[in-house]
Amino acid sequence: MLFNLSVASTEYQSIVNESLWLTPYMVAEQLKVGASNNRVQRVFVEPGLFSIQYSANVNLGAEIHCPETLSEKPYACIPADVLPYLNPSRYCQSDLLANFAMSEFGGEPHGYRRVKAICDWTFQHLAYVSGSTDSETTARDVLVQRQGVCRDFAHLSISLCRGLGIPARYVSGYAIDLEPPDFHGFFEAYLGERWYLFDATRLAPVEGLIRIATGVDASEVPFATLMGTTELKSKVVWARLSNSNQSLPVSGKESAVSTA
Amino acid sequence: MLFNLSVASTEYQSIVNESLWLTPYMVAEQLKVGASNNRVQRVFVEPGLFSIQYSANVNLGAEIHCPETLSEKPYACIPADVLPYLNPSRYCQSDLLANFAMSEFGGEPHGYRRVKAICDWTFQHLAYVSGSTDSETTARDVLVQRQGVCRDFAHLSISLCRGLGIPARYVSGYAIDLEPPDFHGFFEAYLGERWYLFDATRLAPVEGLIRIATGVDASEVPFATLMGTTELKSKVVWARLSNSNQSLPVSGKESAVSTA
Amino acid sequence: MLFNLSVASTEYQSIVNESLWLTPYMVAEQLKVGASNNRVQRVFVEPGLFSIQYSANVNLGAEIHCPETLSEKPYACIPADVLPYLNPSRYCQSDLLANFAMSEFGGEPHGYRRVKAICDWTFQHLAYVSGSTDSETTARDVLVQRQGVCRDFAHLSISLCRGLGIPARYVSGYAIDLEPPDFHGFFEAYLGERWYLFDATRLAPVEGLIRIATGVDASEVPFATLMGTTELKSKVVWARLSNSNQSLPVSGKESAVSTA
Amino acid sequence: MLFNLSVASTEYQSIVNESLWLTPYMVAEQLKVGASNNRVQRVFVEPGLFSIQYSANVNLGAEIHCPETLSEKPYACIPADVLPYLNPSRYCQSDLLANFAMSEFGGEPHGYRRVKAICDWTFQHLAYVSGSTDSETTARDVLVQRQGVCRDFAHLSISLCRGLGIPARYVSGYAIDLEPPDFHGFFEAYLGERWYLFDATRLAPVEGLIRIATGVDASEVPFATLMGTTELKSKVVWARLSNSNQSLPVSGKESAVSTA
Repeated sequence: MLFNLSVASTEYQSIVNESLWLTPYMVAEQLKVGASNNRVQRVFVEPGLFSIQYSANVNLGAEIHCPETLSEKPYACIPADVLPYLNPSRYCQSDLLANFAMSEFGGEPHGYRRVKAICDWTFQHLAYVSGSTDSETTARDVLVQRQGVCRDFAHLSISLCRGLGIPARYVSGYAIDLEPPDFHGFFEAYLGERWYLFDATRLAPVEGLIRIATGVDASEVPFATLMGTTELKSKVVWARLSNSNQSLPVSGKESAVSTA
Repeated sequence: MLFNLSVASTEYQSIVNESLWLTPYMVAEQLKVGASNNRVQRVFVEPGLFSIQYSANVNLGAEIHCPETLSEKPYACIPADVLPYLNPSRYCQSDLLANFAMSEFGGEPHGYRRVKAICDWTFQHLAYVSGSTDSETTARDVLVQRQGVCRDFAHLSISLCRGLGIPARYVSGYAIDLEPPDFHGFFEAYLGERWYLFDATRLAPVEGLIRIATGVDASEVPFATLMGTTELKSKVVWARLSNSNQSLPVSGKESAVSTA
Repeated sequence: MLFNLSVASTEYQSIVNESLWLTPYMVAEQLKVGASNNRVQRVFVEPGLFSIQYSANVNLGAEIHCPETLSEKPYACIPADVLPYLNPSRYCQSDLLANFAMSEFGGEPHGYRRVKAICDWTFQHLAYVSGSTDSETTARDVLVQRQGVCRDFAHLSISLCRGLGIPARYVSGYAIDLEPPDFHGFFEAYLGERWYLFDATRLAPVEGLIRIATGVDASEVPFATLMGTTELKSKVVWARLSNSNQSLPVSGKESAVSTA
Repeated sequence: MLFNLSVASTEYQSIVNESLWLTPYMVAEQLKVGASNNRVQRVFVEPGLFSIQYSANVNLGAEIHCPETLSEKPYACIPADVLPYLNPSRYCQSDLLANFAMSEFGGEPHGYRRVKAICDWTFQHLAYVSGSTDSETTARDVLVQRQGVCRDFAHLSISLCRGLGIPARYVSGYAIDLEPPDFHGFFEAYLGERWYLFDATRLAPVEGLIRIATGVDASEVPFATLMGTTELKSKVVWARLSNSNQSLPVSGKESAVSTA
């Protein structure tokens, strides 16, 4: 089993403290996976009840958001390590959606405002319906069926950005005061000289998004990867603003029965 | 080989005269196919060059179009022979597009104006690009890629009508002064007490549409169905308004080399 | 609401007696729908609990099955009313599967044995998994994911037949001693001079299949078509062999709460 | 414009010499892109005729192939930098094909022989048909339509490997004496302690494959990425065995007219 629950340590997000409990007790192998060095725990679980719990306190730096002046990077200047986030991926078939993206957003003012326009369009045209999509649902499906959950909102937004030549990538994480409490999925677009967070669902303020992992889409950053026959018994996730300073306590707990 | 080039004889369209030439000479079997009794010619062709030419003069009755007062039929009152045109079909997955149709056109005034709104939307959001689609392209694909040819415009419009509960079907035919000259594909919606013609491409006036065949979508009314290995050598199609009265001369000619 | 529960009356299947109860009491409009004149009941239901129950005793004629000598009809001789069942449809994209069908079954002996080979292949390569597919699942999906329920087995078999030039169509019905008891879906192929029943699921003997309705695929013959918001509360279906003669008692009952 | 024509420098492939000509003369920016540090040239091209030519002499180390004893890596031991090649991607929806892979190859002996069995199956069940697929074609499409070109053979094989838990990735390159001469696409599977090359097309010996770039699938390693309106005028590609030593001269030349 692979778990990807630990919050990332980045320029804008620092970990005050964190803890991971595995029941029954075992040592998890710590892996750095993918271009973003996502922190993955690998455990080998015997058949039987298994539980994993993670908690952390996190400080979020003050991201400067909404700068209307942020521009899109000309294709000739996009850094080499950002170029892969223009490619289509499993859930974000940006090649198929490029025509749509150009006809709908080609005339919008470029830069931050164009990504904002994509988020607004996504929010206005998709219904958030729990259970309406599954692990096979792609951005293309979502564009047609007009409903989905957070990962679908992110996949569609990412595809539209890439279709316009704006690098975009998926971020899994926690979100402060998310209702109902669960893991969250949102995205980043590359503007000016770095990546900026966006969330087309409007379920949580961008300032309250805590990053776990970063990838081309949700296929690269699953919260859990299970080999063998496993049944999820319960899941409890929450994140909230700490009274004191800026630190955000987050917690994720999963219990599962592995039978093979 | 099956050919479906002969114009239909309906309440609103009468054949003044018509002729069919097959080269080399042979007798074509006349079939009535499908719920609309489409006139199909079946020929058994030996390997070698083969040519079929059809001409007709047609009188079109004055269809009363655009009556803004035309209403949609309540589901409980749709005649039994019209009900099948609410089902999804090969190219018109109206079940998949129902959410989209409801969110985009659910609030439009019902009736003729709603079908007109669908045609307008289709015209405004699809680019007419020759060669951009093929025989596998469905309404769902077209909604995403935002380009297609006449049959794609019709398939998307039909799917959106059905998704709203308005019976709709595909019509193959000739169109007066079509540019470039070719066969044409358009559609009908059931309003008030009968079927009304629509054409979302705006390539020809609805008054100049001449019906060949009617079906659930293009899969039911191909102009030619070829078994064995055949290569199309040339195709010439035209329709124009006769100087005198209302009669419309139409002509379609296809030459093909059959090699198996 | 439309219901299509009543058994068909055909050359090989006669109705001894039947009854239909609607609760609360109302008069159902009797419709004949589609090329096969399927018997459809249309009712207009007020919000609230609604129940429909149907029972019948049916005599099944002795279909002569398995005649190894049955041949495929040459394309040039297929009757006009059978030709439409060569077309692709919503769930049976026979055009997309034609290459596969030819490579897998092109070399098989033609006729009944080839359709039998298709059924055998389908049975051997698909897993019957309840809930593994939904109303969007097509034959193409099933060919890839290798699992489905009765309608998926039928859709795949139909598509492969059509891909080989063998007319095939979908039949909804009851099946004797089906386990678990439910409605059933199977198919017919046109061989020799008429339609013959096949069932790739092997869940019930072909001799115990009772026809309700016939169509191009399941999209044309739903057991129930519900407009408005409705929740299914319970469903009980069974069919069994009568002790005496050949008569088969069948019963289907659905209760639903309609809320809009 | 981005070009990815330069051969890679790896443990098993060394560059004796190479040259790149751009006409009109300009300086190409050298980029290292993706997890495999693919060598990409970025050029900014003015409207007008443009030509790029690349030649190299390459020494291929003696890869030890076909060791029947090579085993699959248990999931718990796959290195972190190899794990991403188990994920589904744009063209390799291994999640959708996992059932198929397990039912067809689950019982095969594990290791090198299982990947070999996948290559054999792919070769036997797909027809190599130029022009039968396009840039939208995925492994899932190919599994159904049973035809494709080299990249489709690779995508299907990769998907089947991943579906079985064997990491696999796409390699673009040159192939010695390929007929007709063109770029080539093949794949690698992770076995034992490293990546091994495979080519399900059997168009060239594995010993004569020269790597250009490595990625999750073809979407990550296009030979050319063109922004703006560009028309390809000609393309000449070849690779052959040098008379002397083991060195392989390769050459790729593309001329294009850029008009925007």
